Amino acid sequence: MLENTIEFRARYSETDQMGVIHHRHYLAWCEMGRTELMRQLGSSYAELEKQGIFLAVSEIRFSYRASAYYDDLIRVRTTLGKLRSRGGRFCYRVENAETSKLLCRAETDHVCLNAEGSPRKLPEEIYELLKRAL
Amino acid sequence: MLENTIEFRARYSETDQMGVIHHRHYLAWCEMGRTELMRQLGSSYAELEKQGIFLAVSEIRFSYRASAYYDDLIRVRTTLGKLRSRGGRFCYRVENAETSKLLCRAETDHVCLNAEGSPRKLPEEIYELLKRAL
Amino acid sequence: MLENTIEFRARYSETDQMGVIHHRHYLAWCEMGRTELMRQLGSSYAELEKQGIFLAVSEIRFSYRASAYYDDLIRVRTTLGKLRSRGGRFCYRVENAETSKLLCRAETDHVCLNAEGSPRKLPEEIYELLKRAL
Amino acid sequence: MLENTIEFRARYSETDQMGVIHHRHYLAWCEMGRTELMRQLGSSYAELEKQGIFLAVSEIRFSYRASAYYDDLIRVRTTLGKLRSRGGRFCYRVENAETSKLLCRAETDHVCLNAEGSPRKLPEEIYELLKRAL
Repeated sequence: MLENTIEFRARYSETDQMGVIHHRHYLAWCEMGRTELMRQLGSSYAELEKQGIFLAVSEIRFSYRASAYYDDLIRVRTTLGKLRSRGGRFCYRVENAETSKLLCRAETDHVCLNAEGSPRKLPEEIYELLKRAL
Repeated sequence: MLENTIEFRARYSETDQMGVIHHRHYLAWCEMGRTELMRQLGSSYAELEKQGIFLAVSEIRFSYRASAYYDDLIRVRTTLGKLRSRGGRFCYRVENAETSKLLCRAETDHVCLNAEGSPRKLPEEIYELLKRAL
Repeated sequence: MLENTIEFRARYSETDQMGVIHHRHYLAWCEMGRTELMRQLGSSYAELEKQGIFLAVSEIRFSYRASAYYDDLIRVRTTLGKLRSRGGRFCYRVENAETSKLLCRAETDHVCLNAEGSPRKLPEEIYELLKRAL
Repeated sequence: MLENTIEFRARYSETDQMGVIHHRHYLAWCEMGRTELMRQLGSSYAELEKQGIFLAVSEIRFSYRASAYYDDLIRVRTTLGKLRSRGGRFCYRVENAETSKLLCRAETDHVCLNAEGSPRKLPEEIYELLKRAL
């Protein structure tokens, strides 16, 4: 199983008045993880979209365990959890990179769409590429 | 069971390059629904935080069924799904307000925290107030 | 001179750890004002983009005078400041709707682009429509 | 004059339906530049806020010259433009890191506030520290 790891600092603009990172930003962080996992596989999600192939989000489950704070060094570990002919699931572990403390566990399910927004099969070469991450 | 309904237009700044509303904004929309459900009950979440009582998000589950687009009139229906002494669950149905088409179903679980971020019981008067929404 | 007025509540997700609305959200609020000013004129910016005509932002100047807080009722007053064959300027006054206190004054300059991102003249009918707002 | 340079990838969540990075995100990017310039000087803006000292944004001017796209490698060059006893100005040059093409020039003016939101002088040690960046 291939795991991609990224690290970056939590932004001031991501905080809320509770003094912590607002929970919606974890969705953007996991999206960064997906981008980098695909790059690590030798693909590019940006290229995929230029070819009219989209991996739309259909379901998300996020479980928040501890808070992240402004300027914290964050680590996102991304893996591919499932692969189907028409979509798949990515799994994430968001941690504080300095303490390795678990901040959030998450899963996102995706369906493959064409440029008109209709479901379609994953292109064969993308399917084979992603299979290497399982 | 009390249901709160809000309507508003999807913002340009909420779109992404797929030409639809990015999925993270539904979290902010449901948060608006929670605020208004509490106002409808005669409470104010803003006031609650001023008293040092926070309803932090612990779990979220969002199921996306259809896309929302810039300038669409959006409706969010919010209900209280569960109430516990130390937290609760809100449930949401996000629709296109003009067609009533379902866009997203969601649930968010919350834990009550004090100003230091430690779990605590919901204040008695807030518990009783929320109970009326069940 | 036509002035459009919108009112809405500041969202929890728009706060930052200073306990106020983060300054970047005023850009989204002014964008909402532009959308509504165009609707008031009988046009639709959403329709315009579907026809391959874009009003891209080229310059912004925001002057912040007082803070906005979560759940504040916000008012944005939008006017058209300048109109040129290839673009224009919108002007904004962001206020607390309950006290009419000035929160922010802003200007945004726009250039008309085609679907390929190249500068073009405003379509005649859009130019005439916008002229009524001066 | 000290210049801080940061590089990072534009996020998918930062795109809009024009297919480019939405202009409000440049404000968050410049904020990241300020954080890193202060770190380079040996300070920490996170620490400063914990001591009850805030550098609130009072004026911004952004001039957008070219578009940024999803997954572009972005570079932000940050310098201190002015330093006053009660505030200062930061200047920015946002570039495509691969081509060095200028995307945006920006300036942000700041006033020093205490925890109650009242203007105050910059603490002597912060003033001296920032002076080294001029």
